[in-house]
Amino acid sequence: MTIAKNCVILLGLLLVIVNVSNTVASLSIPDPYLVKWYTQKVDHLDYSNRDVFKQRYIISDKHWKPNGPIFFYAGNEGDIFSFANNTGFMWENAPRFNAMNLFMEHRYYGESLPYGNKSFNELKYKGYLTVEQALADYAEFVTEFKQHTPGARDSPVIVIGGSYGGMLASWMRMKYPHIVIGALAGSAPILQFPGIYNCSQYYEIATKSFENYSPLCSSSIRKSWAAMRRVAKTDEGRSWLTNLFRLCNPLTEDTVNEFISFVSSAWDSMAMTDYPNPASFLQPMPAYPIKVACSYLTTPNADDHSLIKTIYSASSVFYNYTGTVQCNNIAQTGGSLGDLAGWYFQACTEMILPICSNGVTDMFEPNEWNFTAYSKGCYESQGVYSDRMKALILFGGKNIKSASNIIFSNGLRDPWSAGGVLESLAPSLLAIKIPGACHHEDLRFTGPNDPKQLLDARALEIKTLKSWLTTYYTENRIDNPAKNNELFYKMG
Amino acid sequence: MTIAKNCVILLGLLLVIVNVSNTVASLSIPDPYLVKWYTQKVDHLDYSNRDVFKQRYIISDKHWKPNGPIFFYAGNEGDIFSFANNTGFMWENAPRFNAMNLFMEHRYYGESLPYGNKSFNELKYKGYLTVEQALADYAEFVTEFKQHTPGARDSPVIVIGGSYGGMLASWMRMKYPHIVIGALAGSAPILQFPGIYNCSQYYEIATKSFENYSPLCSSSIRKSWAAMRRVAKTDEGRSWLTNLFRLCNPLTEDTVNEFISFVSSAWDSMAMTDYPNPASFLQPMPAYPIKVACSYLTTPNADDHSLIKTIYSASSVFYNYTGTVQCNNIAQTGGSLGDLAGWYFQACTEMILPICSNGVTDMFEPNEWNFTAYSKGCYESQGVYSDRMKALILFGGKNIKSASNIIFSNGLRDPWSAGGVLESLAPSLLAIKIPGACHHEDLRFTGPNDPKQLLDARALEIKTLKSWLTTYYTENRIDNPAKNNELFYKMG
Repeated sequence: MTIAKNCVILLGLLLVIVNVSNTVASLSIPDPYLVKWYTQKVDHLDYSNRDVFKQRYIISDKHWKPNGPIFFYAGNEGDIFSFANNTGFMWENAPRFNAMNLFMEHRYYGESLPYGNKSFNELKYKGYLTVEQALADYAEFVTEFKQHTPGARDSPVIVIGGSYGGMLASWMRMKYPHIVIGALAGSAPILQFPGIYNCSQYYEIATKSFENYSPLCSSSIRKSWAAMRRVAKTDEGRSWLTNLFRLCNPLTEDTVNEFISFVSSAWDSMAMTDYPNPASFLQPMPAYPIKVACSYLTTPNADDHSLIKTIYSASSVFYNYTGTVQCNNIAQTGGSLGDLAGWYFQACTEMILPICSNGVTDMFEPNEWNFTAYSKGCYESQGVYSDRMKALILFGGKNIKSASNIIFSNGLRDPWSAGGVLESLAPSLLAIKIPGACHHEDLRFTGPNDPKQLLDARALEIKTLKSWLTTYYTENRIDNPAKNNELFYKMG
Repeated sequence: MTIAKNCVILLGLLLVIVNVSNTVASLSIPDPYLVKWYTQKVDHLDYSNRDVFKQRYIISDKHWKPNGPIFFYAGNEGDIFSFANNTGFMWENAPRFNAMNLFMEHRYYGESLPYGNKSFNELKYKGYLTVEQALADYAEFVTEFKQHTPGARDSPVIVIGGSYGGMLASWMRMKYPHIVIGALAGSAPILQFPGIYNCSQYYEIATKSFENYSPLCSSSIRKSWAAMRRVAKTDEGRSWLTNLFRLCNPLTEDTVNEFISFVSSAWDSMAMTDYPNPASFLQPMPAYPIKVACSYLTTPNADDHSLIKTIYSASSVFYNYTGTVQCNNIAQTGGSLGDLAGWYFQACTEMILPICSNGVTDMFEPNEWNFTAYSKGCYESQGVYSDRMKALILFGGKNIKSASNIIFSNGLRDPWSAGGVLESLAPSLLAIKIPGACHHEDLRFTGPNDPKQLLDARALEIKTLKSWLTTYYTENRIDNPAKNNELFYKMG
């Protein structure tokens, strides 16, 4: 595979990175919950394969009352607990709405593997890992769950998700509007598909986050690529880099590209998670980690070795802020990565999210994006060519104005906001832009340093959910069980 | 299989009967056309099976201008020419709109068999015959066709269909609103699914059509079942029935149920096609065939043999109006039936349309509808149990108010109108009820005896299509190529 392809696929995977590593989260599930399993068809959409598998979900109904809403988290590419732990919005608002929280694990991730440990062995097993099947899982589960849960038959369902989960949430409302009355889609890059998207934007947004702290910072990074390439040309230089970066395995000519990707990943990962509170989302990091990193990146015009030393210090804010990392594995760019196999396959088939860099409008090493090369690489690694038009045929790209009741929220400093819906495309497709915020920051637990813009965004989301629910209860002549709940009237 | 099950499956099949036999149609395709083939994926929705097949379509662009609309017929259960020949609405209106006509054959019907003559051999072949895959065929084809046809990239597409094709048309608009700007769904029983539908209505409507000509007529039929059963009890009686009905094979104890179904099918088939003009839709028949049939059915209280003779004469209006039929094959209830294998499978899996009779509120022999028995029969005959909830989970039943731009037209004398959308469920979901009309009569070529109600319905459909198109051209700032076409302003 070419460098370009490597980079692109790894970038696709950042969606994974963002969501699955939360083993050291400072906040997590505050209410009692149960873990359950639903027997799901492997293939909902044909009758050729009648296999079934067990799909995991988390249920928490402490605050729920009969007919109360169900908040359904559309699990994305990872262990469902990662999302349950990181979606404070649902836990903090269940009491307000007398809502039940359900989190369903995405097929082929976490413990919901249709064919156990051979799930990724061959196309005949992994071939059922598609968005269409995932949505069909959720549609069937929600329908059956409501039918068989006393008091839930008339419960309105709101689907919620962040990142790829936000894409699924918005698409679930588009494809199954009779099952979910609305969707809260946090940082969902549903417009980031070939043909409708300018691939350079992702890195440009990341660059701006650094540049806004200090132009010296982004300049240092922009100049570092050539410096690292120069140093890495000799055995001596690679040895120096190995020591400086405390690499687990000595750098070789063959792994220089991977090393560059490793350094590069620190920057856009930090750009996604430059949160105002200390967090352990991708990695344990301080509040506003880019600010800390940029405090090292003040000498873009220094000699190669001096410059690279500042790069090491800055990237360590991401890779080793706790100081406990013994050595750096350049294959592991984002903490506990979780289920790479699944996302590799999805990124190769349907979820093709082009990302490129040029080193001019962004601070990254130039990398073109080329569909043909990408698809060829996918055929070599996954056994399938990429489906260039698939997502557009399925979901329409920007042409979604006939949809309704979807909140598209985006933190504007999040690189993924480049592919997000930033303008309200129809009266009830509400785009919420949060200027200072990062990757689905609105869905996280509230924190002491949350800026007003973030609080306002959450309040608007709550207000919108309220209006959907009020309409639902009124139209269906059902008493809103939160009508005597003073929290319901308190905000939004 | 039980009698009840036999009956139900055959009723499901009337959808087929209605559409595929048009070899002697008096009107047919008036414009030049081409037959083409599109290479389609067998499985659009997974990556386990990468087979492809050739799907047939008819294209006619005599009246089309660049950017002009595309009328896309969503082929249903039969040879695509049956639908092209019977959908006069598209041919008559293409000149008005400067539209192109496309008719795509449904997978597994006509010549579009994914696995040739083994397509129905095993689940691994026939299992891809699903509504989801059929819709995905149409979505991909329309998208790719527009991309690769000069001048069509910005053409608005309106999907049109009748009966099961009407169901597909409405569902295509619901699931792929970014691909089709609206749907004209003629006689589409999308509400005729288990749990949301009163199974007795179908036969009640059929009965009313006979009763309205004369209560003696419906009484004769109501009394005939017991009479035929009594006569069929003896060898002598069966021999008499064999001769009277000129059956190809002598009636036996084992085929009495099938004989009863054969007679019964004449009545509801006529109820579907009691058209004001002579037509050759199911069978060649005169104008208002029920009126002719009822002219024989005037003696409900006659003795068994006399009553049955009138039944024979009346049913021959359907089975042998031309007088050329040598003998009646009781397995063939509706002319040239076409592709039974496909519809059997669909009726057993997703397209479960319950129909029952009681002999009291209708004139038919009582037959309960029982899902468990139905599903068991399907397992025995098709190797799959029926998916009771599937259609509701996929399409929402009555809960479709978030959809838009769909015309649901129904002739109220059509038994299938029982499962149709008869009230406008949202501002742009327009229900058009045509009191005197039968099965998707509005989609047929106009005829000299068409009543005003039918002409008004067609005018309203044209007006609605105009409004969708005008909105499309205005919103997208594209010149309507029909703007100088005086036909465009003439009607609706």
